[in-house]
Amino acid sequence: MSNYLQMSKDELNAQYKSAKTEYEQLRALHLTLDMSRGKPGGDNMDLSEKMFDLVGNDTGFKNIDGIDCRNYGGLDGLRELKNLFGEILGLAPEQIIVGGNSSLNMMFDTIAQAMTHGLGGEAWGKQSGLKFLCPAPGYDRHFAITEYFGFKLVPVKLNADGPDMDEVEELIKDEKVKGIWCVPKYANPEGITYSDEVVRRFAALKPAAKDFKIFWDNAYCIHDLYDDGDNLLNIYDECVKAGNPDLPIIFASTSKISFPGAGVAVAAGSPNNVAVLKSRMQFQTIGPDKLNQLRHARMFSCADDLYKHMKKHADIIRPKFDSVLNELETLRDTGIARWTNPKGGYFISLYVLPGCAKRVEQLCANAGLILTPAGAAYPYGNDPDDSNLRIAPTYPSAEEIKTAAVILCSAVKVAALEKLLEH
Amino acid sequence: MSNYLQMSKDELNAQYKSAKTEYEQLRALHLTLDMSRGKPGGDNMDLSEKMFDLVGNDTGFKNIDGIDCRNYGGLDGLRELKNLFGEILGLAPEQIIVGGNSSLNMMFDTIAQAMTHGLGGEAWGKQSGLKFLCPAPGYDRHFAITEYFGFKLVPVKLNADGPDMDEVEELIKDEKVKGIWCVPKYANPEGITYSDEVVRRFAALKPAAKDFKIFWDNAYCIHDLYDDGDNLLNIYDECVKAGNPDLPIIFASTSKISFPGAGVAVAAGSPNNVAVLKSRMQFQTIGPDKLNQLRHARMFSCADDLYKHMKKHADIIRPKFDSVLNELETLRDTGIARWTNPKGGYFISLYVLPGCAKRVEQLCANAGLILTPAGAAYPYGNDPDDSNLRIAPTYPSAEEIKTAAVILCSAVKVAALEKLLEH
Repeated sequence: MSNYLQMSKDELNAQYKSAKTEYEQLRALHLTLDMSRGKPGGDNMDLSEKMFDLVGNDTGFKNIDGIDCRNYGGLDGLRELKNLFGEILGLAPEQIIVGGNSSLNMMFDTIAQAMTHGLGGEAWGKQSGLKFLCPAPGYDRHFAITEYFGFKLVPVKLNADGPDMDEVEELIKDEKVKGIWCVPKYANPEGITYSDEVVRRFAALKPAAKDFKIFWDNAYCIHDLYDDGDNLLNIYDECVKAGNPDLPIIFASTSKISFPGAGVAVAAGSPNNVAVLKSRMQFQTIGPDKLNQLRHARMFSCADDLYKHMKKHADIIRPKFDSVLNELETLRDTGIARWTNPKGGYFISLYVLPGCAKRVEQLCANAGLILTPAGAAYPYGNDPDDSNLRIAPTYPSAEEIKTAAVILCSAVKVAALEKLLEH
Repeated sequence: MSNYLQMSKDELNAQYKSAKTEYEQLRALHLTLDMSRGKPGGDNMDLSEKMFDLVGNDTGFKNIDGIDCRNYGGLDGLRELKNLFGEILGLAPEQIIVGGNSSLNMMFDTIAQAMTHGLGGEAWGKQSGLKFLCPAPGYDRHFAITEYFGFKLVPVKLNADGPDMDEVEELIKDEKVKGIWCVPKYANPEGITYSDEVVRRFAALKPAAKDFKIFWDNAYCIHDLYDDGDNLLNIYDECVKAGNPDLPIIFASTSKISFPGAGVAVAAGSPNNVAVLKSRMQFQTIGPDKLNQLRHARMFSCADDLYKHMKKHADIIRPKFDSVLNELETLRDTGIARWTNPKGGYFISLYVLPGCAKRVEQLCANAGLILTPAGAAYPYGNDPDDSNLRIAPTYPSAEEIKTAAVILCSAVKVAALEKLLEH
């Protein structure tokens, strides 16, 4: 297949006819497929099946400190898990707060706290015209939280080595800019990992807003697809070196390690930040679900257990990525698409011809394949180029994912040819 | 023993000497006992041991709707539990939101939502001088939430049939008054249940603040100690009759049914209120821990299962209440104390001579018995009479509770005699 962009109108018409025929054949299959969200598949979740036997009547309900995990108390989580996440994230155990089943919830609550009580400074809700930096493409649910709380979302270009730091350094001179959303490793959806230089420039930021926070959502911290994963510099260490220990609040979870709906989440940071977060939590709850924490502590007694577990996840997920990537290769010479080839995380980021992403989404939907809405990875759901599609290959079965990738590529071709034939 | 209040100074001195000797003997035992919080004992929690076998590899992870409870999603909880709590609370399933492990957290989040976004009206945080009604004695953690958010806490007298409704009806004429905390059944700590008339007067309230809410924390809705429990009128039905469906937000949990740290909590109310709460939740989380919900759904398949289960709890807790009550009877004729004799819930409310509660707390602490801080049941921890002590008999073992009650009564005598001898 040769480059569509160099074809004559007649050639394009011929390509369109054949692409449309292929698409209609796929549509006639009346399939139901979903590549919309970064959900683990059932086989991934089965890897943690042992967990259900680890807390019960035979095994007891006490943690290493003798706490009966069934009862009230323990505001910031079990010591075992503080140790474990400390090891993973390169932090001291006392820097870790272990919470419930959702790190998104902890991020939301942190912004909610900032609005009514501040994060060490004045309540953000008392100020007007506040802004939040949103490296884009990025995670739609991050952006949605700050949109809900009334921030102006300011897009920042996401490069192959992280957010464009020239832009960030310029934007934070505005004291209305209160924070930035980051997924520093295997970023959702780009799959890129922030370079050492980017992390160091983050750590060295001197924002005009004294209570500016980096929301460092390390959601994919150990979610490698291959043996040679990306390395991410320790943001907290760099912040300490730069004299900015309170700059980042770090989040992580086991949602894609154990169970998406029933994992454990953490918020972490400097002693000051931990104290600030706890100052609200003590009124908000008597404590997290310690039984579920105990399940996790017994399943994963050290970081090595986690790394071994993640290799099993990778063995299931990698072939699904490969299926999509192999099919995308059929578009390689057409010039109508480019895509990422990440070493970890949950997404492939696909760029189709400008003005075609929404059409591809629609064509896929008409053929029974649900994609993340085009534009979702941009603030306000607005992709200025209408070009980006976030592809989530993990949830369908290995069989389904092949079909889904065929439908996707067919839709990309049809949409591109429609667009090229307009001219 | 005769009435201390009618004794001569010599008689009081003799009583004091003997009471002090008894107290010092108890103190010399160097015990460690805790009657401070309403925590179930280990034997109570053992009643739910079956739960751990109900969700696992043999039993599967799908609910009645075929949802794999391990994965993401399901913002407002499993249908089984909506049905179950609907049955218990006398509400339609679609009026129920099933959340995480803490109803306190859901109350806190509701107030947090009101502050930044309002509950159908303007954001409360945009208004100044707001007030919240606190029937007292009441639950310290309720009061603490509204104190945290900057409300002026307005105490309301709690009578034997509920809050003094003359007072409430007068206070709500102030549009700064935004809500009221209620524990309508077996109120913490008084153990009283609101009468039908009180519930009806609540339902008929016409507050100046159009977005006034009744926080109806039905924490002890099925927590009877005896076969003939108290009956509580259905607040929602009465509110509908009175044309005020949006007035109450209703909370409950299984914290004292299954596990305090790992139960499930609910928020409920009118369709409008449920929609308002969900409008925030959709940004806050992807969903609650559905596996833990599934455990509960399989353990308690209908309200009858719950009622039977609660009888077993009562059989464990009732003798502990009796131990304390029997020991308190030794004070009956002294005139220095009165106390409640509740038909359910988790507390005995003890009133000692005015000005003596803090001293009793201190004397107990010195003898190794931790009580809830005197005054805790009042807004700002301030009991104007320094008279009330909240006694929580459930957590210590049956053996310990007898000793604890002896220490308590000894301290009450010593404190009273110290006070009477001052004059």
